[in-house]
Amino acid sequence: MEEKEISKAVIARLPRYYRYLQDLLEEGIERISSNELSKQMQVTASQIRQDLNNFGGFGQQGYGYNVQYLYEEIGKILGLDKEHNIIIVGAGNLGQALANYVEFEKKGLIIKGIFDVNPRLIGNTVRGIEIHMIDEMEDFIRKNRIEIAALTVPKSKAEDMAKLLVQYGVKGIWNFANIDLHTIEGVVVENVHLSESLMRLSYRTSKYIKETESRK
Amino acid sequence: MEEKEISKAVIARLPRYYRYLQDLLEEGIERISSNELSKQMQVTASQIRQDLNNFGGFGQQGYGYNVQYLYEEIGKILGLDKEHNIIIVGAGNLGQALANYVEFEKKGLIIKGIFDVNPRLIGNTVRGIEIHMIDEMEDFIRKNRIEIAALTVPKSKAEDMAKLLVQYGVKGIWNFANIDLHTIEGVVVENVHLSESLMRLSYRTSKYIKETESRK
Repeated sequence: MEEKEISKAVIARLPRYYRYLQDLLEEGIERISSNELSKQMQVTASQIRQDLNNFGGFGQQGYGYNVQYLYEEIGKILGLDKEHNIIIVGAGNLGQALANYVEFEKKGLIIKGIFDVNPRLIGNTVRGIEIHMIDEMEDFIRKNRIEIAALTVPKSKAEDMAKLLVQYGVKGIWNFANIDLHTIEGVVVENVHLSESLMRLSYRTSKYIKETESRK
Repeated sequence: MEEKEISKAVIARLPRYYRYLQDLLEEGIERISSNELSKQMQVTASQIRQDLNNFGGFGQQGYGYNVQYLYEEIGKILGLDKEHNIIIVGAGNLGQALANYVEFEKKGLIIKGIFDVNPRLIGNTVRGIEIHMIDEMEDFIRKNRIEIAALTVPKSKAEDMAKLLVQYGVKGIWNFANIDLHTIEGVVVENVHLSESLMRLSYRTSKYIKETESRK
């Protein structure tokens, strides 16, 4: 593969390609044309050809893409060919839901432990992953080379917890708390703001209902 | 307020403004300047002034925005001044985590019921919200005027379940299954693809680690 710079916009679309390619692999499909992939992903075929051209000449006219090869190449760019160790901070329903996602492990994203402040949870496990107390977190992060922490603590605790995580060596925070973590330095933050997502849906749904009613 | 068309890009930013304004209200702050809001949100002040100009002349030079008024006006645009009824389909950890989010109700997004296929869950409740069986769903949706369903079922069941929901009258699907629902018509879909979000974070974190190491 050529070592050229891939644009941010393309990178942002790669996880979605990766997901579709994984589905195709699981269905036993070895080759796919840009037109077929276009239909499935509802992206134009020319967009797909442009995006995938970044990975060298393996989409042959009339022959299609090699699914396995493309899957692996995109995986390498996303860093999924190496293992990345993760902890979950907060063992509530959301933390447990994340711990139960086996999909992550297939992508080399390994959940090593779960942390909480509730002493009644000591030693409990979720899908074999042990729940530890917060005071063990520093040691655990260093010993297990944890890169990423999923933060599922209440909003009021999120900022302090994020600071601790960075101090202990975490480099990426997957933030589910309903707050931005602007003030935290020395770490990459990816926000999942569920309430904003639901508000967007509520807006779009209300609009859709109004439009369909006015057409009656 | 003037009845003018607000651009899609502005609409997409409104939930975030709404969240910050709610935080300010909870802190008892009545007025805020675009400069102060800019610092907190890490958006340029001129962007804020441009966005909020859409809501008429209530940001006065040197005087700032009226937080309560702005909060309410944005709420109206997002449709949050009316109640919207929601069900959660899938009573696993993720479904339960969503049911436990009290934040939604403050915004008029009311979770009326949870549905699952597991008969052992019949009659159980999460934060007072009852778990029902799927065969009661049609009646429940019609009687309770459910607009939105949060879909937290496994990927393999998501498409069929979405079709049922639309048939029963649901107009918006908050999709947590690891699949797009392109084939479903007559409904608005908002996807929360957690594994894509984690892949993006993994990529950005790996890049950040490489960059900081190369600087040493």
